[in-house]
Amino acid sequence: MEEKSSTLKYKHLGIYTQNEHVVYMREDCHVCVSEGFEALTRIRVSNFNTSIVASLNVITSDVLLAGEIGLSEAAAKKLKVSGNETLRVSHLEPIDSLSHVRAKIYNQKLAYTAFEEIITDIVEGDYSNIHLSAFITACAGNRLDVNEISNLTQAMIASGKQLDWNKKIVVDKHCIGGLPGNRTTPIVVAIVAAYGLTMPKTSSRAITSPAGTADTMEVLTNVTLSLEEIKAVVEKEGGCFVWGGTAQLSPADDMLIKIEKALDIDSEGQLIASVLSKKAAAGSTHVVIDIPVGETAKVRTNDAAMKLKEHLEVVGKAVGLTTRVVITDGTQPVGRGIGPALEAMDILSVLKNEVDAPKDLRERAVLLAGELLELSGEIESGKGKQTARGLLESGKAYNKFLAICKAQGNFKQPLLKPYKFEIKAKKTGVLRRIDNRKIAKLAKLSGAPQSKSAGILLNVHLNDEIEKGQLLYTLFAESQGELNYALEYYENHDDIITIE
Amino acid sequence: MEEKSSTLKYKHLGIYTQNEHVVYMREDCHVCVSEGFEALTRIRVSNFNTSIVASLNVITSDVLLAGEIGLSEAAAKKLKVSGNETLRVSHLEPIDSLSHVRAKIYNQKLAYTAFEEIITDIVEGDYSNIHLSAFITACAGNRLDVNEISNLTQAMIASGKQLDWNKKIVVDKHCIGGLPGNRTTPIVVAIVAAYGLTMPKTSSRAITSPAGTADTMEVLTNVTLSLEEIKAVVEKEGGCFVWGGTAQLSPADDMLIKIEKALDIDSEGQLIASVLSKKAAAGSTHVVIDIPVGETAKVRTNDAAMKLKEHLEVVGKAVGLTTRVVITDGTQPVGRGIGPALEAMDILSVLKNEVDAPKDLRERAVLLAGELLELSGEIESGKGKQTARGLLESGKAYNKFLAICKAQGNFKQPLLKPYKFEIKAKKTGVLRRIDNRKIAKLAKLSGAPQSKSAGILLNVHLNDEIEKGQLLYTLFAESQGELNYALEYYENHDDIITIE
Repeated sequence: MEEKSSTLKYKHLGIYTQNEHVVYMREDCHVCVSEGFEALTRIRVSNFNTSIVASLNVITSDVLLAGEIGLSEAAAKKLKVSGNETLRVSHLEPIDSLSHVRAKIYNQKLAYTAFEEIITDIVEGDYSNIHLSAFITACAGNRLDVNEISNLTQAMIASGKQLDWNKKIVVDKHCIGGLPGNRTTPIVVAIVAAYGLTMPKTSSRAITSPAGTADTMEVLTNVTLSLEEIKAVVEKEGGCFVWGGTAQLSPADDMLIKIEKALDIDSEGQLIASVLSKKAAAGSTHVVIDIPVGETAKVRTNDAAMKLKEHLEVVGKAVGLTTRVVITDGTQPVGRGIGPALEAMDILSVLKNEVDAPKDLRERAVLLAGELLELSGEIESGKGKQTARGLLESGKAYNKFLAICKAQGNFKQPLLKPYKFEIKAKKTGVLRRIDNRKIAKLAKLSGAPQSKSAGILLNVHLNDEIEKGQLLYTLFAESQGELNYALEYYENHDDIITIE
Repeated sequence: MEEKSSTLKYKHLGIYTQNEHVVYMREDCHVCVSEGFEALTRIRVSNFNTSIVASLNVITSDVLLAGEIGLSEAAAKKLKVSGNETLRVSHLEPIDSLSHVRAKIYNQKLAYTAFEEIITDIVEGDYSNIHLSAFITACAGNRLDVNEISNLTQAMIASGKQLDWNKKIVVDKHCIGGLPGNRTTPIVVAIVAAYGLTMPKTSSRAITSPAGTADTMEVLTNVTLSLEEIKAVVEKEGGCFVWGGTAQLSPADDMLIKIEKALDIDSEGQLIASVLSKKAAAGSTHVVIDIPVGETAKVRTNDAAMKLKEHLEVVGKAVGLTTRVVITDGTQPVGRGIGPALEAMDILSVLKNEVDAPKDLRERAVLLAGELLELSGEIESGKGKQTARGLLESGKAYNKFLAICKAQGNFKQPLLKPYKFEIKAKKTGVLRRIDNRKIAKLAKLSGAPQSKSAGILLNVHLNDEIEKGQLLYTLFAESQGELNYALEYYENHDDIITIE
C-alpha cells in the first residue's frame, strides 16, 4: 500500500450512528481514487496505535475539505481519536468470520471456534449493521441447536470481562420478558441481600418492551457504574441493581440487542445466550429464571415454556450454572405501572408494605426470592417463601433497598410529567382479556422507555366487573406529540382490553 | 402532531450512503426533544407533496445549524428536495410489512400479499439496511419453497414497470453465474438478433463476481438507457444489451442485490426471483437459462443443478415464461479475460472470428444461441447450433453487434491501464484444477468490476502441460494499491491454480 498517499486529517463531525462505524471521505479524495473505494465499501482506518473497520459514506459537499476525513462518534471512540490527528485508510482484508455467518445462513452447524471468531469481530466493531442483522436472523427461528447455543453463550462470556466475587454462592434471577410491569427484580435483590446472600444484579435495558429493569431502576438511582464501583457496592451491601452495559460483561450482547430491537425480534438462541452469558460473566453460581406464560406473553404456551426451560437448564449446566426455571402466569400485566417511573412507584409501594401496593407484584417477588433462598441451599425446601415474606414485611428488604441505592450514588423519588389521558370503559361487563403486546406497544408509543415517566397506569385486572365509564388506565407521556401518537394507536385498536 | 414545531430547513450535506435513507438532525433540535427521537430511530420526513422514511443520525457539531436538517443523497433524491425547502418530521407509523419479515424469520410460509407488501415497502425505501438484511437472510438457505419463490417473483414483477414489445415471441437468456469470464450474452444477442428474433437483453451488474454483463458491456458502449431509448434500439436492431437498473424493471431486485453483495451471498429463492422477475418484466416469452456446474462454480453438483432447473421451470411457468434450462461444464473459467475490459476483448475476438479467439467462449455462445433459436420454434430441433454458427462465421453477428452498440450511443474499444503483474508456474506438471472462486476473488481484489480494466488474463486451461516459469496469467489493475492487494492474496493462496 502506498503509505504516503493514504493519510488524511481527522475532522470532528459529531455524527451519532449508534454502534455503527462510519467513515466519511470526500468523493475527490486522492485515496478513494487510488484505492478504488466507493460508497458502502468497508475499509480499515488506523491511527498511530490501533485500527478499526468502518463503512464508507462519500461526501460531495464542503462538510469535509480536501485532505480531511470524518468518523461517526462510535468509530471515533473505538479508535480513540482526538484533535487533528492524521489517520490512514487502507483496503480491508477479508473478515474471515463472515464465512461462518454465511455457513449459518445456509443452515450449517457452527462449532465453538466459529462463534468465538464471530463474537470477537462483532465486539471489535468489524461487522456492519447488515452483517449483524444477517447473523441475528440466521440464528433466529430455532436455527441454533442446544449445543450451538452453549457455544454461542461460551463465546459471549469469553468476549468480555468475567467477575469473581470470592464467594462460594452468588445468586441471580432473570425473567424472560414479555409481561408488562413485571418488575420483581429490585424487590428480589432487596430481600435476598437482606437475608445475607450475594446478589450482584446486572440488568439490561428494554429490547422490545416499554422498560427493562435498568430503565426502571435508573429512575430511582444511578445504574451506570464502573466495575470497581459495582464491586464496592456489592462488597458493602451484598447486592446491587446496575445496568450491565458499562461493566463490559458480554459486550457483544449489547450490540446484538440493538439490532434485535430494530427488527423487533428476540430469538430463542440469542435470548438464552444473552441471559446466561450475562449471569456467568457476572460470576453467578445459582440462578432462578422466571418464564411467564400467556397467549400474549413472550412465551405463549406451556409446551414452548417447557422446551425453553429444558434448553436453559442444559445450556446453564454447560456453562457451569446451577439453574432453576420457574413457570409463572403470564396472562396479564403485573403491578399497576408500565413504563420506568410508573413501575418504580410500584416497587416502592411493595417495599414499603403500603396497603394498596400491588399484590400480584408482591406475591411474585416473594415467590422468586423464596426459590433463590432454597436454590442456594441456605433455606430448606418449602420454607423459602415464608422467609422471603418475613424479610419484606419486617421492612428489612426496604432498608436494604435504600442502602443499595445510596451505595450506588443516591435515591431519587420518581416523578411524572403533566401529559396524561384517562381511558375509560366503553361498556359494562367482565374484563376478559388484556393484550400484553398491545398494551406494551401503547406504552412504547407514549415514549417509554426513553421518556422515563411515560407509560400506563393500570387500574383493572382480569375478571374484574367493569362499569361503563369506569377508569381502566391512564396514559402518561413527556410531550403532547407522544401522547397524541399513543392515543392514535388506542383509537385504532379496540382489543387492547376486552370487556364482554 | 404539533405541525409548527416539527419543521426544519433543508441543508444539502452531499452524503452518499448508497440506497439507505438517512436523516441528519441536531441533538438540541426542538423537534427531537418534543418528539422523543434518538439515534437510529426511523422517522418520517415530508415536504410539500410527498414523504419518505429515514434512519436518524444525530449531529452534535456545526455541520448543521439550529433549525436545519440534512438528508443522505438517496433520501434527498427520493423526496425530490431542492434548495432551501422546509421539511417536516414526524413519528413513523409502524411499517406493517415488517410483521411478515418477522413471520419469515420464524419459518412461516408467506402468501403473495405478504411478499407484495414487503416488496412495495422496500421499493419505497421504507426498510433500513438492517431490515433488508434480515429479509434476505430469512429467505436464504432454502427457506423459500417453490410456491413462495413464485409469489416473490410475481411481487417483484408487479413492483416496477412491465414492458410490452407487441411481438408474439421475445427471447432472452441468462447464466446462473459463478463462472469467471463466461460472457456469452452479448454474442448470443448478436447472433439471435442477426437471425431476426427480438432479444431486448437487460443485464445486472456483478453481485459477488468480478463482472456482470452490464459491467462488461459498459466498456464497449453506453448501457444506461432510458426505457424510451431501449425501445428505440430494439425497434431498430431487434436486440440490445443494457443495464436493467435504469429501466425500473423489478426495482426491488437492485436494492436486494446490494445487500446480498455486502453479505457475499446469492440465495436460491432470491436468485430465481431476481432472474425470472427481470425476464418477465422485460416482456420476454421464451428464456434459455444456462447453469454451469463445477466444484468451484456457483452450482457445485448435478443434483443441485437439477433441483434448481426444476424450480426455475416451475416458477417460470407460474409467471408465464417458456423456460429451457441448459446444464453446462463449470469446472474452469470461460474465455481468457476475467474483469469487464478483459472480457470485452474476448467478446470482440469471437465476434470478429479472430484465429486466436477463445474457442470455449465461442462454442458456448453458439450452443446457447442455438437453443434459443430452437426454443422460439423458428428453427427445427437439432438445427439451432448450425444456424447460430453460420451467423457468427459470416460476420453477420459482428455487424449486428456493432449496429446495436451504435444504436445505444457509441462503440468504444476496451483499454487497459499499465498496472500489471505476470504470474508464472512455480513447477512443471499438468494443470489439474483452477479454483473459480479464488481466481474470481483475485480479480475482485485487483479492482474488478469497479475498476473496468482490472482483472485477470488467463493463458492456460485444465489439463494443459505446464513448464516451470511458463506464464499462467496476468493480473491487471488501475492503481498500484489494488495491484498490491491482489498480489498479497495471491502470495497467501497457492491453490488458485494447481499443477501436479
